[in-house]
Amino acid sequence: MSDADTLFRLAALNTDYAGCIDADRLEEWPGLFMERCLYKVTTAENIRRGYVAGIIYADSRAMLTDRVASLRQANIYERQSYRHIVGMPSLRAAESGEIAAEAPFLVVRTMRDGRMDLFAAGVYRDRVREDDGRLRFAERIVVCDSSRFDTLVAIPL
Amino acid sequence: MSDADTLFRLAALNTDYAGCIDADRLEEWPGLFMERCLYKVTTAENIRRGYVAGIIYADSRAMLTDRVASLRQANIYERQSYRHIVGMPSLRAAESGEIAAEAPFLVVRTMRDGRMDLFAAGVYRDRVREDDGRLRFAERIVVCDSSRFDTLVAIPL
Amino acid sequence: MSDADTLFRLAALNTDYAGCIDADRLEEWPGLFMERCLYKVTTAENIRRGYVAGIIYADSRAMLTDRVASLRQANIYERQSYRHIVGMPSLRAAESGEIAAEAPFLVVRTMRDGRMDLFAAGVYRDRVREDDGRLRFAERIVVCDSSRFDTLVAIPL
Repeated sequence: MSDADTLFRLAALNTDYAGCIDADRLEEWPGLFMERCLYKVTTAENIRRGYVAGIIYADSRAMLTDRVASLRQANIYERQSYRHIVGMPSLRAAESGEIAAEAPFLVVRTMRDGRMDLFAAGVYRDRVREDDGRLRFAERIVVCDSSRFDTLVAIPL
Repeated sequence: MSDADTLFRLAALNTDYAGCIDADRLEEWPGLFMERCLYKVTTAENIRRGYVAGIIYADSRAMLTDRVASLRQANIYERQSYRHIVGMPSLRAAESGEIAAEAPFLVVRTMRDGRMDLFAAGVYRDRVREDDGRLRFAERIVVCDSSRFDTLVAIPL
Repeated sequence: MSDADTLFRLAALNTDYAGCIDADRLEEWPGLFMERCLYKVTTAENIRRGYVAGIIYADSRAMLTDRVASLRQANIYERQSYRHIVGMPSLRAAESGEIAAEAPFLVVRTMRDGRMDLFAAGVYRDRVREDDGRLRFAERIVVCDSSRFDTLVAIPL
């Protein structure tokens, strides 16, 4: 498979990822990860300081599914909406069936009254694998530029 | 034609579309649509409620051309500028010569005094066809995240 | 090489470019330009008025290297961070080994206290060449939508 094809499949995976969240089809989001995986939200500042913990952490698809379930229970009121804009991924490495890639992202939030703001910006650091005939995340580290988080980062980033 | 090629041609169409508007070459904008087409600007809220009307509606290239003409007459003063950032499209279906696709978008507005703001965010829902050797929109539904519109949405989104 | 491949290589070059700046690897940034090159930051307003000077101007890789060195000396305090989101490039022409292309961009700035704002938006106007087995910029004109610049545009755009 050529680099161009690989990049296209990665871009398509990113589009699916953003689509799940922005169209409020959160239940489909865990399916983009492998059963054993790593999903972590952290900040550039934390990484510079060598903190590995992350603000949100999950190491299996089951944990991601639990997370969605608890979000559904908590958000009994109508919610704000989000729009991810993800840049073209850059290929870091592709070996032994695994692709390492990065892509910049920006999330715009729209409140119920119509106001929009910049909700998050940063970079996705990914390890992706062929899994059952499709690409899935073995690892997605969401590195946010800002270290200030909205009270509770409820939705996946 | 492979999916990768199709996606590329869609991405190029989106780039042309944004370029017409952002570089103020509005007269070229109707040419990206088929003669019989549907162009509609609506909101995620309207779609959830089952409202089909839309805020802006045109069902032919001639109507789009009229729209541009009236914009030109109205905007006798120097105008603000816009910048579209459009994400990679995702392919929904491709059959009988028609491609269905979606792409997230973000529009940043720059006022004459230099201030910038988030003007619109949302998703394009498209049906695209080969028409006279190039891709053209049979349908573009612009679904905005926000239900609050700036007094008058003058420019095409 | 097909148009799709060319666009992919351009998109990858844009991703590398943004990555150098956003990850604070500024020292790698001049290497994306040819030794004899043109790098200019200007505004849509300046171009409309026929002003050719530009706000920032460099006509060799050495000048870009100097610029990075002086930025490093000046920025003794921890700096804000930037995130470029670059749209798909559109191919303007490709002849005699040179590719002309354009791509819209948006830069989000994150301050030390976590606040984010729209820092810049505009379009890259590029001439790109094969140079030592990779694509490099023979020319990058950064055309900003806003004519108001933050005190000093320190970082490359």
